[in-house]
Amino acid sequence: MAPSILQPEADAPAQKYVAAKTLTQFDSPSLLHRSLLEQPHKVIRASGSYLYLEDGRKILDACGGAAVAIIGHGNDEVAQAALDQMRQVSYVHTLSYTTDSAENLARSILRSNDSGFDHGLVKAFFVGSGSEANDAAMKCARQYWYEKGQTQRRYFISRLQGYHGNTIGSMSVSTMVGRKIPYQDMLLPYVSHVSAADVYHGSNDGEKEEEFTERLIAEIEVEFLRLGPENIISFMAETVVGAASGTMPAPKGYWPAVRNLCNKYGILLHLDEIMCGMGRTGTLFAFEQEGIRPDIVTIGKGLGGGYAPIAAMLINSTIVDSLRKGTSAFNHGQTYQAHPVSCATALAVQNIVRRDGLLERVKILGSKLQDLLSTTFTDCDYVGDIRGRGLFWSLEFVENKARKSPFPKEFHFGPRVQQAAFNIGVAIYPGSGTIDGLSGDHVLIAPPYTTTEEELEVAVATVKKAYNEVVAAYFSLEHAT
Amino acid sequence: MAPSILQPEADAPAQKYVAAKTLTQFDSPSLLHRSLLEQPHKVIRASGSYLYLEDGRKILDACGGAAVAIIGHGNDEVAQAALDQMRQVSYVHTLSYTTDSAENLARSILRSNDSGFDHGLVKAFFVGSGSEANDAAMKCARQYWYEKGQTQRRYFISRLQGYHGNTIGSMSVSTMVGRKIPYQDMLLPYVSHVSAADVYHGSNDGEKEEEFTERLIAEIEVEFLRLGPENIISFMAETVVGAASGTMPAPKGYWPAVRNLCNKYGILLHLDEIMCGMGRTGTLFAFEQEGIRPDIVTIGKGLGGGYAPIAAMLINSTIVDSLRKGTSAFNHGQTYQAHPVSCATALAVQNIVRRDGLLERVKILGSKLQDLLSTTFTDCDYVGDIRGRGLFWSLEFVENKARKSPFPKEFHFGPRVQQAAFNIGVAIYPGSGTIDGLSGDHVLIAPPYTTTEEELEVAVATVKKAYNEVVAAYFSLEHAT
Repeated sequence: MAPSILQPEADAPAQKYVAAKTLTQFDSPSLLHRSLLEQPHKVIRASGSYLYLEDGRKILDACGGAAVAIIGHGNDEVAQAALDQMRQVSYVHTLSYTTDSAENLARSILRSNDSGFDHGLVKAFFVGSGSEANDAAMKCARQYWYEKGQTQRRYFISRLQGYHGNTIGSMSVSTMVGRKIPYQDMLLPYVSHVSAADVYHGSNDGEKEEEFTERLIAEIEVEFLRLGPENIISFMAETVVGAASGTMPAPKGYWPAVRNLCNKYGILLHLDEIMCGMGRTGTLFAFEQEGIRPDIVTIGKGLGGGYAPIAAMLINSTIVDSLRKGTSAFNHGQTYQAHPVSCATALAVQNIVRRDGLLERVKILGSKLQDLLSTTFTDCDYVGDIRGRGLFWSLEFVENKARKSPFPKEFHFGPRVQQAAFNIGVAIYPGSGTIDGLSGDHVLIAPPYTTTEEELEVAVATVKKAYNEVVAAYFSLEHAT
Repeated sequence: MAPSILQPEADAPAQKYVAAKTLTQFDSPSLLHRSLLEQPHKVIRASGSYLYLEDGRKILDACGGAAVAIIGHGNDEVAQAALDQMRQVSYVHTLSYTTDSAENLARSILRSNDSGFDHGLVKAFFVGSGSEANDAAMKCARQYWYEKGQTQRRYFISRLQGYHGNTIGSMSVSTMVGRKIPYQDMLLPYVSHVSAADVYHGSNDGEKEEEFTERLIAEIEVEFLRLGPENIISFMAETVVGAASGTMPAPKGYWPAVRNLCNKYGILLHLDEIMCGMGRTGTLFAFEQEGIRPDIVTIGKGLGGGYAPIAAMLINSTIVDSLRKGTSAFNHGQTYQAHPVSCATALAVQNIVRRDGLLERVKILGSKLQDLLSTTFTDCDYVGDIRGRGLFWSLEFVENKARKSPFPKEFHFGPRVQQAAFNIGVAIYPGSGTIDGLSGDHVLIAPPYTTTEEELEVAVATVKKAYNEVVAAYFSLEHAT
């Protein structure tokens, strides 16, 4: 078997460890799975924080897929809302029609303002995935400049160790190396990447966080000037990086400085909150904690909580006004945009989040999770960094804590920890290529906002057991060779 | 107001005529509509073949959005299947898990073989839109060659007057000019287009259909050789062209000759059946009527019938074997791929199609629709072509029937016919830029497979009235100037 190029969230090594059974060519299912050699576990029931497998096992879902299931599984209120909408209006084409479900979801997200933060976003555009939302946002940003006659602008600037999706457009601006290998020659040509805002690996010995920020900002400015700011469409980045490097917040002062830089050079700021948004970090948008207002925001996973495949692009009045004064229309559309059932489903999820005060719960439980992880792992020899916000946390594993050097990537430390935890009954999300897309390991914990303190305790204790197992396995292998 | 660049399926002129009300800047909704100046009609209920508007009107839906609603609206069996799945398993991440709903949908589509046609497709990959399906298929085709070490292959060949979607990747291979205007500089560079297989406009006077086919095939061969067949990933085309040029089947012998040419030069054949597939033309796949077996097929609209945003890439064993022998995994994945609720919903739709013999019904009603259109419009001075298959038909309007010359595009003949029909109570789908993306007009009729003969009679009679109105308006304007 040739080495697999699959990565999380398409990671063959991970699959190797979690797969339920190995396939032969003769019992191949009709569904194309991520691996052609192994069959994933069949889930026959899911309820609250738990998944029930066909083989009889009950799994505590401490990652909600990939930070998707924000109110857990099988919520009957949401199911009922979907049913009602499907009976009322199951589908309309947005060329001619609209529905209350889409209008109300847009209003609910943009005009709620529960936190009092003035985000400045005025219009929502709903599509079916985070990838589609980023593709739409890239087109919208480009059209913003088209309307102003600045058609020379063709560059997108994004960051290393960022992930924005898997459509060809959104993959072009992403930098998870393993996911791009077979496709290098079919990507967009006008994309440029700056350094990740990675305090743990990026800052120098003795460098203060503010100094590191200054260095990162200076690098972005140099890149703006190298390409010519007049040639750049937008700066795209995840407010808190998701699966690519493991729930990585930016250093102090980074986001206000990026906002200033974009203002200075007249470049749009597009924040990707597909994974970190919709309450995951304790505020509706992660950027609220940074005190900045982006021009474009994309949201996804938590928007529908997994009950419907839905994502969105949100834009501020600067963008809307440019389009309105120009051709008066966003020149983009999809058959399933603003899908009535998806919108009604997402609205039911968001109404539950609001009614049940779940963002406040994320803050409280997030603090608890942080304490648990800190207490459990701070003194561990091979846990280099514990980072995150709200209910969005990662452990990064290193072979040498002083040198912050990773385990050999062939050992798949992160996926092994995930698999060991899964075997004990807890699902977490694996991460490989944490440092540069190739080496580095982490695991990501992102439980539902409805989780309990007890479930967090079980999850963290299980990850600890899994970690111990994998450390033991590593050193037994070391001694064996 | 600057002229809008919006096109169907994003057409500003069309919207201008169908919009329910004109917006001012001060009553702007939170939902980003296709137009920033006008508000679409609000649908408050949809059932069977009918949409019910907030303003009290009842509309006969003779296009099902854009050929989406194959079993009509508000089907309770489908709603119940979605509810059941949402209660059972609402979401899982395909990195580790699978569900019966996704496995069964894949099996249902690939292994049914109701028609006895051996299509050779063995695996299905489910995503959330036709655009995503085409992006996935482009990546899969490229990875096929990557596994064989042929990484120099980077070109996609598609056809003029084809539409494959609106993500950046799928838009790059599409040629609806109006939709691409603001984005020219951010598209994929390695795409090449050959002529549309358009008998009506493309064939020369006195040229036999077979001769026209030969000419088209020769052009494709020249293009293969110009780029070097060893540099080409796939040939992508709609088996029956959808919205771009209006339900356009290829001339006799075209598809077998394309298949032979792809075989001769070792180029993958990817048929886009997002609009024409899933029974729309009377067979599950439109290519069954051509007697060929593609390597990759994408399906969409009819798959979920509008009840869920779902589409799929289907691949044959040639592709699967290449991946299996190589890296053993398709290096692509999305959070919402194989979404359990979407899959269960689509399966319910497909089960109804099969149980109720709806493909047979498409053939019978399609023949009836063809007769009605032919009887009603053949002698009309400004109807140049009546074309289609199954329940997928278009009228192309021309100012001069002998010269096949279009109406001035500023008049928006097609969108006007659509609007006039809508005002009488029938929804059809408008088309502009029929000939070359800029000029030419058509309207598209694609009723649910569950429609009745009486509804077809009403629809066609209404389109005739609408046509008469628009012809009268055109000549009154002519005389006024």
